[in-house]
Amino acid sequence: MAKAEDFGFGTQIRKSPYFDATVRWGAKAFSVYNHMYIPREFGDPEQNFWNLINDAILCDVAVERQVEITGPDAARFVQMLTPRDLSKLAVGQCKYVLITNADGGILNDPILLRLGENHFWLSLADSDILLWAQGVAVHSGMDVTIREPDVSPLQLQGPKSGEVMRALFGDSIMDLKYYWLRRVELDGIPLIVSRTGWSSELGYELYLQDSTRGDALWERIMAAGQPLGLKPGHTSSIRRIEGGMLSYHADADIGTNPYELGLDRLVNLEIEADFIGKAALRRIKAEGVRRQQVGLVIDGAPLGGPNTTFWPIHRDGAAIGKVTSAIHSPRLKQNIALAMVAVEHAAIGTALEVATATGPRRAIVVERPFYDPKKTLAAA
Amino acid sequence: MAKAEDFGFGTQIRKSPYFDATVRWGAKAFSVYNHMYIPREFGDPEQNFWNLINDAILCDVAVERQVEITGPDAARFVQMLTPRDLSKLAVGQCKYVLITNADGGILNDPILLRLGENHFWLSLADSDILLWAQGVAVHSGMDVTIREPDVSPLQLQGPKSGEVMRALFGDSIMDLKYYWLRRVELDGIPLIVSRTGWSSELGYELYLQDSTRGDALWERIMAAGQPLGLKPGHTSSIRRIEGGMLSYHADADIGTNPYELGLDRLVNLEIEADFIGKAALRRIKAEGVRRQQVGLVIDGAPLGGPNTTFWPIHRDGAAIGKVTSAIHSPRLKQNIALAMVAVEHAAIGTALEVATATGPRRAIVVERPFYDPKKTLAAA
Repeated sequence: MAKAEDFGFGTQIRKSPYFDATVRWGAKAFSVYNHMYIPREFGDPEQNFWNLINDAILCDVAVERQVEITGPDAARFVQMLTPRDLSKLAVGQCKYVLITNADGGILNDPILLRLGENHFWLSLADSDILLWAQGVAVHSGMDVTIREPDVSPLQLQGPKSGEVMRALFGDSIMDLKYYWLRRVELDGIPLIVSRTGWSSELGYELYLQDSTRGDALWERIMAAGQPLGLKPGHTSSIRRIEGGMLSYHADADIGTNPYELGLDRLVNLEIEADFIGKAALRRIKAEGVRRQQVGLVIDGAPLGGPNTTFWPIHRDGAAIGKVTSAIHSPRLKQNIALAMVAVEHAAIGTALEVATATGPRRAIVVERPFYDPKKTLAAA
Repeated sequence: MAKAEDFGFGTQIRKSPYFDATVRWGAKAFSVYNHMYIPREFGDPEQNFWNLINDAILCDVAVERQVEITGPDAARFVQMLTPRDLSKLAVGQCKYVLITNADGGILNDPILLRLGENHFWLSLADSDILLWAQGVAVHSGMDVTIREPDVSPLQLQGPKSGEVMRALFGDSIMDLKYYWLRRVELDGIPLIVSRTGWSSELGYELYLQDSTRGDALWERIMAAGQPLGLKPGHTSSIRRIEGGMLSYHADADIGTNPYELGLDRLVNLEIEADFIGKAALRRIKAEGVRRQQVGLVIDGAPLGGPNTTFWPIHRDGAAIGKVTSAIHSPRLKQNIALAMVAVEHAAIGTALEVATATGPRRAIVVERPFYDPKKTLAAA
């Protein structure tokens, strides 16, 4: 079996505490995220998708580095970092938030975990929010401590993940509510578990708090889960695009604002706190956005894989936007994509032309998410 | 020939404006740096080293993203970001600087370019200093604009790089001094060129200021340089370790301070400016460091490749440090390494034991750099 040493990886990019385990369990290819390797293939991405939606998969997402914010002013400081109203965030609760800069541009879209009254984690997408938060703190006059703790999450996702959790932690874990967290132990390994994930399926994240125990934790979960159908896996681009979930840098970046993504619910301009980006976002909201994220269904044969460049979008010969994430969904039997287009062309049903890697194809603007178990797919 | 599309790269990681050119010219493997692909192999890393030290190589280092700082307070702001004394930094000059946080930890080790009185670029190692700088600015009360401009550097390095520069820009470029920069054009392509690099060889960096011209620039330089011995290449780990140059995340990180690296010359506690980290660095200097970077020569057969994990170092059975970067130098015919060890074990000539991937080996502490054309190698 391939050993970690065979990959020829240097030390400039970190290895996850689960690295050796994922290689042992069949990881074939890695990407890099937050300066750390992340498994992105276990042989067949489509099989990984079916494993996720029919059973359950265990994914190494140690790349979701945590920014820990503590200290007497921690709660006030965290509210300064995000336009989302945190006044009702209870201890033990999580929220999906945006981190915005002074121009209202999106720097990250983490999960915020409230571990204590003045104890928070930001579970990051791919950018150095540790540096952003430490930088903001320098002249803030607030008493906070900001650091990256020794925390490495796993995602356990899929319809059978609940039964795997029950096997690991007993019946008492079954009442953990969506977007809540709990402190637990497994064979003496200290964990935080939360009912969150990046799959739009039933799912959990397990935040290992001792990187020397990565291998033991992975094996313990697989041993409990395999009889219930659990497979080693990786975050599924198919499922996350079906769910209309963002991939930072692909679908959003520092030049993207929340209104362009239709994420108005994550911005509350009415709160008293003077969060970073408030004035800019107020102005953007008043003026209206010039471009907007849409869903697309792209005609033709199944795409061979995800887009590897931003595909230009045209209408009547004029360039009006770009495809940011595209993939073929074997469940929907459609090519689906997230795209950013000029607002004039964002209406549901609009016909556009996408310059794919293999030539132009017709596409239709549709509603997102593409797949939602609670409703049927919007007709293309 | 392999096309860029064949690599199966997604859009979550950016492609350099030279990506297609490097693939066309034989790039076989890529790494990721500042959320962007960087070529790291053109077939044989040792041949790339010989090309560099005997002739010249052209390297895609668009991953060196620039943080541009402008505005009335730009000069004052930049001095706040670094412990290095910038009072003598002239317009047109460059300096190697450290960016430190409030604890004196190193966030990055960029080249600072002064393009105008209040116009600076930080040419980055691998961390999001754009976010750090924007974060620091939020409550600084200073009038600055901080952004990532459309700038993508190439490195032209090696003893024949001067002749290639002459072929491209004429005799007038020959008086460009070490660590100075100049604005030039090539076939109408706007460039900044500087006499800097990451090779300890004669070398230049060419900062493309229009990413749509990447392919044209690469081809223009190769066409002029090939008759003079120029080869496509990549930054050489062998040469940079020989030169004792840092690789951020490998040899230094947020928990490393400048004194541990022996970079006292980059810290000036006497300047008036209250740069970030000043108080912490003053305290660290007064207390003395507990660990220190050293050079090592490691016994035995040539290492098969660079270390892919931090190798533990022992002395008399006790763990006293770690190897951060190790490689075999075919010129020195030695295994050389940068390591961080407890100060008690840092004296030149100290014998240590390194736990390499293939078993323990004896190592001796030696002076850095390992190779300096101006002096002979310190005897092992």
